[in-house]
Amino acid sequence: MEKINVVIAGPRGRMGREAVKLVQQTENYHLIAVVDHKYDGRFLSEVEGFFGLEIPIYSDIAKCFCETKADVLIDLTTPEHGMFHTKTALEYGVRPVVGTTGFSKENLSELDSICREKEIGCIIAPNFAIGAVLMMKFAQMAGKYFNDVEIIELHHDQKLDAPSGTAVKTAEMIADVRKAKKQGHPEEKEAITGARGAEYEGMHIHSVRLPGLIAHQQVMFGSEGQTLSIRHDSYNRQSFMSGVKLAVDTVLKIDTLVYGLENILE
Amino acid sequence: MEKINVVIAGPRGRMGREAVKLVQQTENYHLIAVVDHKYDGRFLSEVEGFFGLEIPIYSDIAKCFCETKADVLIDLTTPEHGMFHTKTALEYGVRPVVGTTGFSKENLSELDSICREKEIGCIIAPNFAIGAVLMMKFAQMAGKYFNDVEIIELHHDQKLDAPSGTAVKTAEMIADVRKAKKQGHPEEKEAITGARGAEYEGMHIHSVRLPGLIAHQQVMFGSEGQTLSIRHDSYNRQSFMSGVKLAVDTVLKIDTLVYGLENILE
Amino acid sequence: MEKINVVIAGPRGRMGREAVKLVQQTENYHLIAVVDHKYDGRFLSEVEGFFGLEIPIYSDIAKCFCETKADVLIDLTTPEHGMFHTKTALEYGVRPVVGTTGFSKENLSELDSICREKEIGCIIAPNFAIGAVLMMKFAQMAGKYFNDVEIIELHHDQKLDAPSGTAVKTAEMIADVRKAKKQGHPEEKEAITGARGAEYEGMHIHSVRLPGLIAHQQVMFGSEGQTLSIRHDSYNRQSFMSGVKLAVDTVLKIDTLVYGLENILE
Amino acid sequence: MEKINVVIAGPRGRMGREAVKLVQQTENYHLIAVVDHKYDGRFLSEVEGFFGLEIPIYSDIAKCFCETKADVLIDLTTPEHGMFHTKTALEYGVRPVVGTTGFSKENLSELDSICREKEIGCIIAPNFAIGAVLMMKFAQMAGKYFNDVEIIELHHDQKLDAPSGTAVKTAEMIADVRKAKKQGHPEEKEAITGARGAEYEGMHIHSVRLPGLIAHQQVMFGSEGQTLSIRHDSYNRQSFMSGVKLAVDTVLKIDTLVYGLENILE
Repeated sequence: MEKINVVIAGPRGRMGREAVKLVQQTENYHLIAVVDHKYDGRFLSEVEGFFGLEIPIYSDIAKCFCETKADVLIDLTTPEHGMFHTKTALEYGVRPVVGTTGFSKENLSELDSICREKEIGCIIAPNFAIGAVLMMKFAQMAGKYFNDVEIIELHHDQKLDAPSGTAVKTAEMIADVRKAKKQGHPEEKEAITGARGAEYEGMHIHSVRLPGLIAHQQVMFGSEGQTLSIRHDSYNRQSFMSGVKLAVDTVLKIDTLVYGLENILE
Repeated sequence: MEKINVVIAGPRGRMGREAVKLVQQTENYHLIAVVDHKYDGRFLSEVEGFFGLEIPIYSDIAKCFCETKADVLIDLTTPEHGMFHTKTALEYGVRPVVGTTGFSKENLSELDSICREKEIGCIIAPNFAIGAVLMMKFAQMAGKYFNDVEIIELHHDQKLDAPSGTAVKTAEMIADVRKAKKQGHPEEKEAITGARGAEYEGMHIHSVRLPGLIAHQQVMFGSEGQTLSIRHDSYNRQSFMSGVKLAVDTVLKIDTLVYGLENILE
Repeated sequence: MEKINVVIAGPRGRMGREAVKLVQQTENYHLIAVVDHKYDGRFLSEVEGFFGLEIPIYSDIAKCFCETKADVLIDLTTPEHGMFHTKTALEYGVRPVVGTTGFSKENLSELDSICREKEIGCIIAPNFAIGAVLMMKFAQMAGKYFNDVEIIELHHDQKLDAPSGTAVKTAEMIADVRKAKKQGHPEEKEAITGARGAEYEGMHIHSVRLPGLIAHQQVMFGSEGQTLSIRHDSYNRQSFMSGVKLAVDTVLKIDTLVYGLENILE
Repeated sequence: MEKINVVIAGPRGRMGREAVKLVQQTENYHLIAVVDHKYDGRFLSEVEGFFGLEIPIYSDIAKCFCETKADVLIDLTTPEHGMFHTKTALEYGVRPVVGTTGFSKENLSELDSICREKEIGCIIAPNFAIGAVLMMKFAQMAGKYFNDVEIIELHHDQKLDAPSGTAVKTAEMIADVRKAKKQGHPEEKEAITGARGAEYEGMHIHSVRLPGLIAHQQVMFGSEGQTLSIRHDSYNRQSFMSGVKLAVDTVLKIDTLVYGLENILE
């Protein structure tokens, strides 16, 4: 297997720490540097939780790419830095795998132009959990054949918003292909307000909140005599790492911008 | 096994037809007559769907008990007739197993007095599905130890009311023992109205409606690090028959009125 | 909508009866004849369960196609008759939708040649439940990204074979794409034989049998921090009809043989 | 609320650490000392992970009880020390809540005698997860009314033994009350060995192992037309703490030995 030199931006965040572990544990991945606005010029081993990792820290990402021979940048920083990091990486011929959200259409269009010009790949994904992404993709596929669908999302009771972003995204994706329909009996009545959940283009979304739960979603389709359910259970942040790995392996083989993990899943 | 002579009131209803099958298939049960406001003096075999059953039909329940030696009456008629049938049975020393709803507190109190005077048993149950009754009983027991609970009930999309009667009954039973609590994050917000479902004393109830579904309910409890779920799936009306059988076997051994199948389940 | 003239072969079987209902209930479908080895020359209305349906019955399928202007044949007979019916239909320019199993590779190859020559479509599918077919398709897609999968299939306790045919088919489809792996801990031990289920190329299949259950299957994938589950619940034979309808609508637009409903689902 | 002085034995173990947190977070609990074979005479604050906790450490449990005014001992050590710790606590009038396994019948009988003589309570429980204990209790209750039951237990793929201890314990508890029955069709055949799972007195147990999973168990009961399922999902060790708290609150009110959390759940 070909050796891949990786730089991680944002190593101290929750996703970043998992990414460091991932690169350490993958045989042909080689962590050559990290980018962090703190600790410039020092080593990761000096930071809490990275015992023994003699990896140089750069606060200047351009300098990092000058002094190292990076193949891939894994960027898990913030929307403010994501665009700048991604552009800089592309300029230096380093392929970015970006978990940051907040890119505008203009950003994406600009990045795509650079990719095509330089003929190198770039992958930006708001969600790296392969299971969650497949759930949404399958839900959309099933939405072509089933007009009736309800989404039940279940999270810990410290979550503030309902429905979850993933539930709304799933409903949007289904709505793109589903034949419009107001579901339920036309004359159904709620004896207690809210029983039938949130309505999104005739579909219903239910948000369950309980201590103990982590992050779960079930998409249920029904037609005469049958139901089809697609469910994703996320137990911890490690769930994102198989998606990051897939993106790293894929970004080396493509020469355009890909937005969304679903577009590299066949 | 002792032979038990059974009279069924309401044999042509959906529950009644299942009850006729049950009695036919149970070795020591003997169907000696049926009570029906139609077809007086004829035989069940003359009615569609009861091929070969030479069982006499009575429209007058008193006459039925005069002319036969019934041990048990299974009454699956309507609220209007239920009380009269039950009282008449008790007067003739026949033990009633009643699936009719609509008894008032006064009715029940009157029937209990007659039972105690006559020293014979009577069982009245709005729900004969043992699984559903156990689900509610277990939910109530768990409600003592878990303050956080959400109910998800799932039915076919022809159902008019939401939440289902069983869901509300379950919530009431839990509320009787649960320490009062408004669940979810105090500052949670619904981005789409209804997402968090119906609220009943701080608990949340979600009503899913899809073609294909029949009648299902899941009660979920959560606390730090764990969830406990109790689920009943009802696929067809046969689910009521094991409860009817349990009631028939039990009514012969008791000498009071019992209301609710849960009270004969230990 | 264009009117479609339909002939059904095997109208008295369980699937056939559902197909008759389907055609009756679909606005632009028109049932013009049925093919049955019994009751030649009579009308469907004379057969039990088809009250009022003045549809002619033919025992000779060729004669049927001569005397009627069929667009589509829905064949729900037996393996013995399926091939002959399908060939005869194609000869008469009638497009077959076939739910019969038991076609050999040679049969399929021969039928494909006829289709191409005549430039008309033909769809043969061993399973018309869209939900079940999508479950298998999704499971195969997920199998590319998850090496670890277990299948739990649940059926009524009158089923003789374990695992179910659908479970084995699902495992085969996943095996076609999944990186080979012997799952579970290399040193895991069964304290009671069979606990870890049936093994198929390193995957595990569990067969649950209980009275009350109908036909259900759950395919579970796992990787660090997440699981993805795809579940199909089949409650009754009506579940096949949306697939038959999809096949009828599709067969009119294609000019080759398609084997398997999954190949007409995008 | 009355203030309760607590001593924890085994504070550095995984359960012990959770117990320290529990006592810290409970308003009327007061952690006055810990018992540990290491660090005698020092303070918990000097041990990694207990920052700021100025709690004295004793290696001699008798000395601990002499010098402090403990109400309750929470013992989360090993089978070797459990019995000695428990007896010593009882001698000093301290009520033990013990999570250690490995007590023999003779041990329990001896402890019960001491409890009765001293008129103080003692609770020993192999499992403190209230949800898991209720699941088993409910399963046993349902086993009286349903002869057919299958257990599906699901764990991470690093687990060595199958079925899990909890699954076997559940099956034993059901077997105590269930009418003996060999489940499944009498002539059912396994096309692949193990499909029908492990057999325990005619019941079947299925062990699913997948990366990502934590510790889950579902007990399914079936009868004509219905299924009843009881499921416990354990996500992390915090799940034990509500049970420990219940035991601490209860042990102060009883004056005998109670073995098994199920016996203090009503």
